[in-house]
Amino acid sequence: MIRTHDAGSLRATDAGTTVTLAGWVARRRDHGGVIFVDLRDASGVVQVVFREEDAHALRNEYCVKVVGEVTRRPEGNENPELPTGEIEVTATELDVLSEAAPLPLPVDDQVVAGDDIRLKYRYLDLRRSGPARAMRLRSRANQLARTVLHERDFLEIETPTLTRSTPEGARDFLVPVRLQPGSWYALPQSPQLFKQLLMVGGMERYYQIARCYRDEDFRADRQPEFTQLDIEMSFVTEDDVIDLGEAIVAALWSDLAGYEIPRPIPRITWHDAMARYGSDKPDLRYGVELTELTDYLRGTQFRVFAGAIDAGGYVGAVVMPGGAGQTRKELDGWQDWAKARGAKGLAYVVLDAETGEARGPVAKNLSAEHLAGLADAVGAKPGDAIFFAASAETREAQELLGAARIEIAKRAGLVDESAWAFCWVVDAPMFEKTDEGGWTAVHHPFTSPNSEWVDRFEDAPDRALAYAYDIVCNGNEIGGGSIRIHRRDVQQRVFELLGITPEEAQDKFGFLLEAFSYGPPPHGGIAFGWDRVCMLLAGADSIREVIAFPKTRGGFDPLTGAPTPITAQQRTEAGIDAKPKPAQAPHPGTAGPAAPVSTPT
Amino acid sequence: MIRTHDAGSLRATDAGTTVTLAGWVARRRDHGGVIFVDLRDASGVVQVVFREEDAHALRNEYCVKVVGEVTRRPEGNENPELPTGEIEVTATELDVLSEAAPLPLPVDDQVVAGDDIRLKYRYLDLRRSGPARAMRLRSRANQLARTVLHERDFLEIETPTLTRSTPEGARDFLVPVRLQPGSWYALPQSPQLFKQLLMVGGMERYYQIARCYRDEDFRADRQPEFTQLDIEMSFVTEDDVIDLGEAIVAALWSDLAGYEIPRPIPRITWHDAMARYGSDKPDLRYGVELTELTDYLRGTQFRVFAGAIDAGGYVGAVVMPGGAGQTRKELDGWQDWAKARGAKGLAYVVLDAETGEARGPVAKNLSAEHLAGLADAVGAKPGDAIFFAASAETREAQELLGAARIEIAKRAGLVDESAWAFCWVVDAPMFEKTDEGGWTAVHHPFTSPNSEWVDRFEDAPDRALAYAYDIVCNGNEIGGGSIRIHRRDVQQRVFELLGITPEEAQDKFGFLLEAFSYGPPPHGGIAFGWDRVCMLLAGADSIREVIAFPKTRGGFDPLTGAPTPITAQQRTEAGIDAKPKPAQAPHPGTAGPAAPVSTPT
Repeated sequence: MIRTHDAGSLRATDAGTTVTLAGWVARRRDHGGVIFVDLRDASGVVQVVFREEDAHALRNEYCVKVVGEVTRRPEGNENPELPTGEIEVTATELDVLSEAAPLPLPVDDQVVAGDDIRLKYRYLDLRRSGPARAMRLRSRANQLARTVLHERDFLEIETPTLTRSTPEGARDFLVPVRLQPGSWYALPQSPQLFKQLLMVGGMERYYQIARCYRDEDFRADRQPEFTQLDIEMSFVTEDDVIDLGEAIVAALWSDLAGYEIPRPIPRITWHDAMARYGSDKPDLRYGVELTELTDYLRGTQFRVFAGAIDAGGYVGAVVMPGGAGQTRKELDGWQDWAKARGAKGLAYVVLDAETGEARGPVAKNLSAEHLAGLADAVGAKPGDAIFFAASAETREAQELLGAARIEIAKRAGLVDESAWAFCWVVDAPMFEKTDEGGWTAVHHPFTSPNSEWVDRFEDAPDRALAYAYDIVCNGNEIGGGSIRIHRRDVQQRVFELLGITPEEAQDKFGFLLEAFSYGPPPHGGIAFGWDRVCMLLAGADSIREVIAFPKTRGGFDPLTGAPTPITAQQRTEAGIDAKPKPAQAPHPGTAGPAAPVSTPT
Repeated sequence: MIRTHDAGSLRATDAGTTVTLAGWVARRRDHGGVIFVDLRDASGVVQVVFREEDAHALRNEYCVKVVGEVTRRPEGNENPELPTGEIEVTATELDVLSEAAPLPLPVDDQVVAGDDIRLKYRYLDLRRSGPARAMRLRSRANQLARTVLHERDFLEIETPTLTRSTPEGARDFLVPVRLQPGSWYALPQSPQLFKQLLMVGGMERYYQIARCYRDEDFRADRQPEFTQLDIEMSFVTEDDVIDLGEAIVAALWSDLAGYEIPRPIPRITWHDAMARYGSDKPDLRYGVELTELTDYLRGTQFRVFAGAIDAGGYVGAVVMPGGAGQTRKELDGWQDWAKARGAKGLAYVVLDAETGEARGPVAKNLSAEHLAGLADAVGAKPGDAIFFAASAETREAQELLGAARIEIAKRAGLVDESAWAFCWVVDAPMFEKTDEGGWTAVHHPFTSPNSEWVDRFEDAPDRALAYAYDIVCNGNEIGGGSIRIHRRDVQQRVFELLGITPEEAQDKFGFLLEAFSYGPPPHGGIAFGWDRVCMLLAGADSIREVIAFPKTRGGFDPLTGAPTPITAQQRTEAGIDAKPKPAQAPHPGTAGPAAPVSTPT
């Protein structure tokens, strides 16, 4: 090392020591004859004192090597905010390792800059304390999770990323194969099938911090490549996987957020979560639960509610504490909010803060009797506002109220930003209706129906429950998993219900079905959305903050300029325009001589 | 867990305990009225005794759950070869978790099967002890390396795999980008540029077990995707990186091969390695060094040698101990061997075992004087054979002798297969001539010339040396690295020498050059070929043995059938045939609103 000490490690006890430091000029202050420089390296910052003539060329972000003596700062000049604040280094030698041009992005803790600039100069951005800390946190998170897993005899196994297209609800990224022109690999959306095959292979306990790929439209906070902590276990029940998942999040939050998660983490069924919070990933940092009013309002003359009730649907409400104090404009704002979500509007009643009298557009439409008992029915007090949703589709109304609940918490300041609230959402449904009237898997087609439904999920696909579980933190789904199907016949029946023909199933998943013919063990697993886990731990508001080189919308990398056009020669060589050979042709890939089957020693 | 105990963990001290086991039927033996089953799980094997009527349906590789009592085996029936050999489990309950069809690949330790069958049924192959052990070894290797790195404050950082094409001597795999039709990502051949950018970003110590991609023709033991342990450090010298590399291999070999590597690992210069072993990755498990005879044979009338000497080239020899005892056919075989390598042949002399007299085709062409001193000059004894190579190109002749050296060791049984011999090959040349008469980088274009050459490598590119180092184990290059260029001017000069125009350099590496404008630190690193490291540790003869789901030649996966043709719809959606927009067009990817620049807490 060209340095002897880390800048941030120096303390008063080092006074008198001659040290060699190497790092960056973070700040420079001239004081008649002497120049003070904050020298920064990965360990922190220390003040270095130069004679003016030695250091007058130094500019911000020059990379320098300094030899000097550690000295106590003159009394009164200590900086208690800096770990090295009791000392400074009096420089005797200065070596400029490299210079810096004027900076397009200042290396300051507080910077107002667009993502484009930050990412184009990510190497400057990462010198800032926040982004650097996010990288360190993520590295530590990996280490903590691996410790939990290795203590439990898990094997880290890498699965292929040049593989076969597996439809999991998103498009695959494709890769042309030069050696087999006309054929393409797909980048995996997850290691799902490979980890199940590892279980069939008797590996019993697998994990991987796995890169995954989804070619989705860039909504909100998505990246074309992302990372999951991927886990699979054999001979387990749902409780075993949940226990392991808790051990991992407990280790992470204890070490990185200083928070001991109370265990066991509460479990709530999917149906309860929808009924109480209007969400399958409820934020439990606050109450504001939904109330179903379908029975209470039965017989109402109000057409909007009556229509939903008569259609066998749902009417419900959520209370905004103090919501009666909102201005007319604020109340109108809720209508715009609801319309932006695709709803027709958001019916409401406000309760007069003094009299408790119900007012507002819905109040006029409800009977005196319904109005009289309303506050009690929904748990509202004078001064509150009550928002309603009604629909023939229960889930649609619940989700509108669930979204209103989140918005209420935000607008009413009910969210304790320092709080952590975890829960497991269990007993998810197997299937949901598609717009075309068929069925789609709520989790994925390899999720097992629970023991109650495994032999009869076809009887009522809308009611069949799965051994599926998601872990939720502050309203974010941070992980999810399931016990998998390991019986070939059950897997085939699920494919059938999903409208996958036997031929299609054979074509796409034949290898999995065949594997299930050879003594597959019962197995299950979980995957954590690692970018999101790290984002929450870092207190960041975007997963981009915990990714070293993230992409912006559209999958563009402002730093390297990727993606780019390719040359005609690349196009030809890669076989992009080649016609595939007929499927029956003997495969060139299988023609090589076989390696001997040796037993590694 | 549906089991209470691991099968392989049971011992005599467990006698009397009732256990629930889950695993696979490894073997079944019927003994009038009782059936003995070897039950296998990930921990090992235990013998289970069933009443015949309970277990008569069991077949190999059925997956079962068994409840039973651990009992000591009757005296004389112990199996000392099995850790569980003192006991057996007397079954009281049997639950078949899944059945197995007749096996296409027997789950036996000794199997003779082609790779195609093994890989098509990899999930059966992995149930065998050898392949399962290889997976465990690799997982442990990861853990050991990470421990060394975390102890030294390295950060694990993930770099992008959807990125920009970087030419590193092989073709890139390409990925069409649907959201930017006509533009393509490339899969990275290594994280080289990103890890250097992380150093510019002040991360100082980075590592990653990184997936890399090279679209090469499938020679020998290549995979289209492979893994490297990738490391980069700032403010270091070559010695620092070498020390770290040694710490990693020492930890691996100590734990996984029971071998304490003597340290420091010897270093040999690249030129010495070529001179003494005819290889830049010498196998030091045996001697058999090359001897240069250019001076000794100066003035010879033998045209082959004289031609090389006159052209300023090289004549050398390597001795095969006992090689004089080879039959005529064996000696002829060497000629075929040499021709298969592209040489014209392999000149030789044999020394009579009794008289020491030199015989053979070359002997006739050498003067009496040259013959008389030959044995001493090359260190040969009566009964040995001496092989020669001569060429105007020193390296060409040395490499032929180096290959002969390896072959000699093999044929003469000089290789101690249980030995481990490591070395560092240092001071590699910066450049070598291309067939077209230009220069190419021996390592890669980001490797720094050493301090002696940095300011004048253009003066003698063929002699300029780099701060580059490779670590070699038993003749395999298992890792390599260098101190990198961090000065923009030096990097530009290297590009220039390599025939990369300033425009090209700007287009392909502009972001790196720009990064070097902002205070880049001196830095260097190393990458280990992780598949090969694990292969050597596992005692396997192919990297396929340490990859969970490897591909065969041509990049074919016999298990999933990847790669496959794609549909017309996939083709259209992926934008494969779209024309790229002109480069000047404002990029849609940059249009999104910027996230606030927050400091994670």
